[in-house]
Formats: sequence, structure tokens, C-alpha cells
Amino acid sequence: MSNLIQPRTLKGFRDYLPELMIPRERMLETARKVYRSYGFAPIDTPALEYAEILLGKGGAESDRQLYRFRDHGDRDVALRFDLTVPFARFAAEHIGKLGTPFKRYHMGLVWRGENTQHGRYREFMQCDFDTIGTTANAADCETALVIHDLMAALDREFTFGAFEIRINNRLVLNGLLEELGLAEKSKALLIALDKLGKAGADAVAQEMVDKAQVQAEQARSILALAQMEGSNSEILERVEAEFGRNRKSADGVQRLRELLTVAKAAGAADGRIKIDLSIARGLDYYTGTIYETFLQAMPGIGSVCSGGRYDNLASLYTKQVLPGVGASLGLDRFLAALEEMGKVDKTATPAPVIVFCMAMECLGDYQRIARMLRAAGIGVEVYPDAKKIGQQFQYAERRGHRIALIAGPAEFAKGVCNVKDLIAKEQRDNVPEGELVELLRSALGP
Amino acid sequence: MSNLIQPRTLKGFRDYLPELMIPRERMLETARKVYRSYGFAPIDTPALEYAEILLGKGGAESDRQLYRFRDHGDRDVALRFDLTVPFARFAAEHIGKLGTPFKRYHMGLVWRGENTQHGRYREFMQCDFDTIGTTANAADCETALVIHDLMAALDREFTFGAFEIRINNRLVLNGLLEELGLAEKSKALLIALDKLGKAGADAVAQEMVDKAQVQAEQARSILALAQMEGSNSEILERVEAEFGRNRKSADGVQRLRELLTVAKAAGAADGRIKIDLSIARGLDYYTGTIYETFLQAMPGIGSVCSGGRYDNLASLYTKQVLPGVGASLGLDRFLAALEEMGKVDKTATPAPVIVFCMAMECLGDYQRIARMLRAAGIGVEVYPDAKKIGQQFQYAERRGHRIALIAGPAEFAKGVCNVKDLIAKEQRDNVPEGELVELLRSALGP
Repeated sequence: MSNLIQPRTLKGFRDYLPELMIPRERMLETARKVYRSYGFAPIDTPALEYAEILLGKGGAESDRQLYRFRDHGDRDVALRFDLTVPFARFAAEHIGKLGTPFKRYHMGLVWRGENTQHGRYREFMQCDFDTIGTTANAADCETALVIHDLMAALDREFTFGAFEIRINNRLVLNGLLEELGLAEKSKALLIALDKLGKAGADAVAQEMVDKAQVQAEQARSILALAQMEGSNSEILERVEAEFGRNRKSADGVQRLRELLTVAKAAGAADGRIKIDLSIARGLDYYTGTIYETFLQAMPGIGSVCSGGRYDNLASLYTKQVLPGVGASLGLDRFLAALEEMGKVDKTATPAPVIVFCMAMECLGDYQRIARMLRAAGIGVEVYPDAKKIGQQFQYAERRGHRIALIAGPAEFAKGVCNVKDLIAKEQRDNVPEGELVELLRSALGP
Repeated sequence: MSNLIQPRTLKGFRDYLPELMIPRERMLETARKVYRSYGFAPIDTPALEYAEILLGKGGAESDRQLYRFRDHGDRDVALRFDLTVPFARFAAEHIGKLGTPFKRYHMGLVWRGENTQHGRYREFMQCDFDTIGTTANAADCETALVIHDLMAALDREFTFGAFEIRINNRLVLNGLLEELGLAEKSKALLIALDKLGKAGADAVAQEMVDKAQVQAEQARSILALAQMEGSNSEILERVEAEFGRNRKSADGVQRLRELLTVAKAAGAADGRIKIDLSIARGLDYYTGTIYETFLQAMPGIGSVCSGGRYDNLASLYTKQVLPGVGASLGLDRFLAALEEMGKVDKTATPAPVIVFCMAMECLGDYQRIARMLRAAGIGVEVYPDAKKIGQQFQYAERRGHRIALIAGPAEFAKGVCNVKDLIAKEQRDNVPEGELVELLRSALGP
């Protein structure tokens, strides 16, 4: 009899139980609402792609982490490791039909067979949004606003407190490096600079010397510039004064300045968007504005929403040049951080109301009352068995229901119902059915 | 220069462009709302499982269709082919913590390497809901109500017209077969009977003779009973009269009768739930009530929402007996059917309003007005370039925006905006900004 298969998940994969899945859905819904409110349209692409579509797009490490295999037709296939590469393939295939500019969001699972230390999972959800087919800085400005409104909306749901969107522009960085005579080494230098937050200045300077072969003094100059402090306008003015002669730097400064002006005019909260010349993003393909987003209460988790502008999304698949800008919310990572901060309510039911089952013959009445409340937008569960009331109270408490409706044949004969507030532990007897919706609405709040 | 990688999806997989993804999200949102309103809580499980968890659970065909491979740790893994088997594994693992009864919904992708004829895809989304840990008929009754409310809510979104939930109970069928002395052959007989809708009576009778080795006359009797016509109560009365002596049949009739009574008391629309003794469901594990759902306007696509009661969900993984009942909405198949019926609006944007870009220096004002409208719940896109207005009109028309806001420095100086209704082709000039929300709300409707 012991032929049971052990019920277990793969290492690096997890089940989402209701108490975590309910906030995860709320987070998805919040992101969806914000993206849609800006006119980003949803798309979806398959989890599986031809391996050649995905290989080499995220570097050697990404290739190693790919879940790759041969399918039934002996095709070389792999699970997507991000949503950007499938979007590039998607854009190359459909842009003629879609037209430009094209604004899309995409929420989906991605898979990476990476080391599972530090609470990293091998399956996680990303929520990307991008505007492609335009070089207009209007799209860069809007990207900052979307991140701002997304974080503000998530804060209303999860109250994690202040956040800061740190922005920079690769043009500024590249202009600086040009002026320092280090343009050729920019790639290695920016990869090193990207590690500043985690590794610290000394380690980054050392990497610049080792990997980019610059002199220690040059590394220190770059770091001094990147770590420049001051208000947004002070930083912009200093860059302009010192490097304004460089066309790239001047262009980058101009675009950053416009972004700040537009964000302010649009009403983004003061102090939420901060220029930080040390924000580099390791990824090769960013060429303009870059964005990272940090929680004040938990800077250690790193950026929760990052992105940037790129010159050409889909050059591997089409000759049509598709510039764009966008960002990605690392949903599962963010959720794990909120969980760690104790900001995730442990409710196991989406229905605030439960109807107790006092007598099986009243089942029709229980479902009748429940449907009346559901039609008014109130979630209602009906307990399925006429078990002892103590057991039903226990169940309701465990699940997190807030109000119990208690009635049997006597109450239904009178058209009333007893209403127990499970939080306040107060009961109102004989509430007429016609008054239930109003009573529950006021008890449950908006 | 011709080293481009051909952008293409795998056979049997598809991209979802906005005009199909927008209704797909609406469908998901509708199902989520209905499930939640009944207190079903969301869960999620990994796309990848140990192959041993999935193998043998859906029969030989299902095993053959499995996307199965070795992962980086040389584990034998596979992509899930449905949501029921992962739920069984999930329940075995977590039921101690979750407690019973446990009501969950799960919306997720599943993968089957099946023949791609007849518009079948190898990746598709299922939306399951189940109540486990109780044998109470209350859960069976509620399952019918959930299907009813789900279909009614989907009809409000997509206006596909009438639907019919056909119910039966395996106890009734098994009781009938016992009385006919065919209990041992019930498995093969029910598999044959399940094909009645698609294959017709003659083919089913033949299969009963061939596969279940019954006599032609017996096959005809079974089919005559299964195809019994009449009102719900006529059918129940006839079964009771002819087979009421059989404990199983009597029990099944009793449960079906209670379901109809509860559905009626709860206010489910008349005529939506119909007893059909020929509904068998091919799957082995159903033991009680079974459900299938048909669209009157498109019976050919088969059941769009099916399920049933089972005695034990997770017997392969745990000794704890977990009876339950539930059903599954085949979302992508349903969506394909609605598309074919022309019931899917071809809108490519979730934002009804577009703000035209008349002058780049007004970008802050454009985003300010847009954010004001977004805060009022109105989706607004801002066109990113000061292109010719004709081009912006074309873009808006192509995307399906309904209203364009047109303003430049002169308008903003006066605090007004011109509002063009893109459907009615009417324009109202100089609308004060303070009146915009109200005007757009009444123009766009609820």
C-alpha cells in the first residue's frame, strides 16, 4: 500500500497558496489597471519558442540557464527566460499589421535554471510594458510616469511607503566617457558601474582597472562623477557645465530635463524621481534613458521596476528598425519582499462573507441570499455541511471571513437573518433580508 | 546581412495580439470575479513538475503528448497537461495546512503535444474551480450555480445567447447498468456513451458491442434510456419508477432533484439546467454529478465548461481521502468559438481616449490632462510625436480609440480643450478642463 508518489515540487519552484496568491492577483490587477490606463495593450506569446529565437540573446549565462529540449517533432525548443526576447520576435513578425507606435504590456511566467540561493526561483512572473516604433522623448517621459503611477497604486494596496525612481541616460554616461577618452571601454565600464549598489565603490574601481584596463585614477574620476550628489537640477547643471560641449551628454541632459519637467507638470509626486548618474543597467542594449526603482523601506532587495530606452528591439529578426523604451516589474520578487516586510495580509478567502449551514433543507435559501449579495458585488461563501456551529466558526476564522450570516427555517419563515461580525464579535439578530446588502456594504467598507 | 533569424512560433502555438488578448483578459477577469464571488480562492502551481507526478494520470495518450525532458539537475520533468493532476499533488502536500472543505480556482496554461488539426492548440489556458474535502451535495448544487453565473456573466460580455448546462449523475448511470446486469462493463460503456454527441447513436451502439462486448439489444436499451426525453421532472420520475429499487440510481436521482430545487430557489434562470442521461464524461474518475455546458448558437464546439464529482482526488499521493466536485472552463477554446461567431470586438487598445500631440512643448499639459482623466478611471493614451494630425487620426482609428482630445498652447492658455468624438465624427470646441471628466464619462457610458 506504500506505493504513494511523494507529492513535491521541483527545486526552485513553488506553489502559491491562497494567502499568497490573493495578494499576487491583486498586484497583477493593479499593474494591469495602470498599464491599461495609459493605453498599453495586452499581448501574449507562447511559453515555448524555437531555441534559436532565445539563444544568445541574454548572454552565455542565460543560455546555460535555458530549459531547452527536443519536442515531439524533434524541434530544438526552449522555455522563454524573459519577455523581451519573445517581444522582439513578436514585433518582427507582426509590426506590419500592428503599426507604430505600438504600446504593449505583457504579464507572463519566465523560466531560468539558475542557482536557487538568495530566495531566487526558477519560475517567476514578469510584467513588462514598452512603447516601440518611436524615438520621441515623450515615450521616455511617459515611462517614468507609468512607473510612478504603478508604484503609487501598489503602495495604496500594500502600504510599503516611499519609493524612488532613479533615472539616468546612457547618452550622459557615454558622453562623459568620450570626454575622458574612454569611449572604447564603455561597455566594460558600465557593466562594472552597474554593480555599485551591491559591491561598493572600491570593488567597482578594482573591476574597472582589471576588466576595462583603465588606470586607477580614471576609475576614481568616473566613480566621482557617477556618485555626484545634489538636487536634480544641480546635477544636470554640473554635467552641462563640465561636459556640455559633448553632443551626447548635452542630448542626454536635455532629455532628462524634459522628463523631469513633464513629470512635474503631470503632477507626479515631488521627490519621487531622482537623477542618479551611477545607474547604468548591465544590459548591453540600453542606449538612452534608464530607470531603476527602489523601496525606501527595503533598499536591499534592489530595483523592483527597471528598464530603459533601446535603439533597436528586433534587429536579429527583421531589418525594420524598432526603437523603443519600457520597463519591467519583477512581480514575484517584489511580492517576496513585501511578504518579508510583513505587508501581505494573510487572508485565505476572497469572500468576506460566509453563510453558515444550519439545516440542509435551507440550502436553496442559503444560495438565494448569497446570490442576492453576490449580485451586489459582495463575495459570499456558503458552508456546504450542517456541521456543528463551533466547527463552522473555526473554519470561518481560519479562512479570514469577516461576517457570518446565520439562519435556519425559523428565520427564513420571517424573511430575516442573523448577522455576526467575526472581527468585532458582535451579532445583530433578525435583520430583514431587504436590508442585508446595505448593512453588509457599510460593515465591509469600500 | 541576411543572417536574420526567421521570427516564427512553433506549430500549434500562437501569439495573442491585442485585439484577441483584450477579450481574453476580459474573459479571465469575468471568470475570476464569479469564482471569487463564491469564495473560491486562487492558487497557482509550477508549469513544470516531476514527470512521475504527471505520468499515467491522463492515460496513455496523455503520456505520449507530454512535453517531457531532463532538466539541468538531470531530473525527469514535464510540463503540466492539465490543472487537475497538479491540484491533486498540491492538495496532498498542503491539505493539512489548508483544512477542509477547501475551495480553489486555478487559471493557468497547460501544454499537450497533440495533433493540431481542428484548430487545437498545444498551449492553452484552463480555468478550473473545485470544492474538495466534502461529499455534501451542497457543493454539487453550488457547482451548477457557479457554471450558471459564469455563463450568464460571459454572455453579458460577449452576447453569445442561450446556453444549457446538461447534468447527469454517474450513480444513475451505474445503477441503470447494474439493473441491466452490465455493471462490470460500465467503464467501456460510459466511454462509448460519452461519444454520443459527436459520433451519433449508431456508432456508439457499435462501439458498445465491439469494445464492451454487450449484445446489440443491450446497447440499444442503454441508448434508449440515455436518450430519454422529457422535462427534468419527467425524466427523474421515469428513472425512479423503473430503477428506483436500485440504491445507486435512487441516490443519484435524489441528488439531481436537490440540485434542481436549490438552483431554482437560488434564482438560476429557468431552462438553463437540463438533465441529460446521455452525458457521461469519458474520464474514469468521475463518480457522481457530471456537468457539460453547450452554447445554443454553436453546439458543434462541444462543451465549453465541464466537470463532475469524484470520490478521491489525490489517492496517488496521499492516504487522506479527498472527495470533491468541480468544473473547468476551456478558456482558449471558448474564445476561439466566440471569435468564429463574430462575437469578439476588434479593438486594439484598452484606452478609449487619445490625446493628440499638437506641439511638443505641451507634453507636460498632455500628460497632466491624461493623468486627471486616468484618476477618474478613464483610460487615456498620449500620442508621442507632433506628427501631422491626419496621421494621428489614422492611428486613432486603427487602434479603436473613441474620443480624441485636441489642444495646443492657445487652448492650454485658456484652460480648455477640443473634444472630438471619433465614432460620431462630432467635435466640441473649447471645453473647460474642469468639465472634461463629466463630458467624457457621459460620452463613453459605463
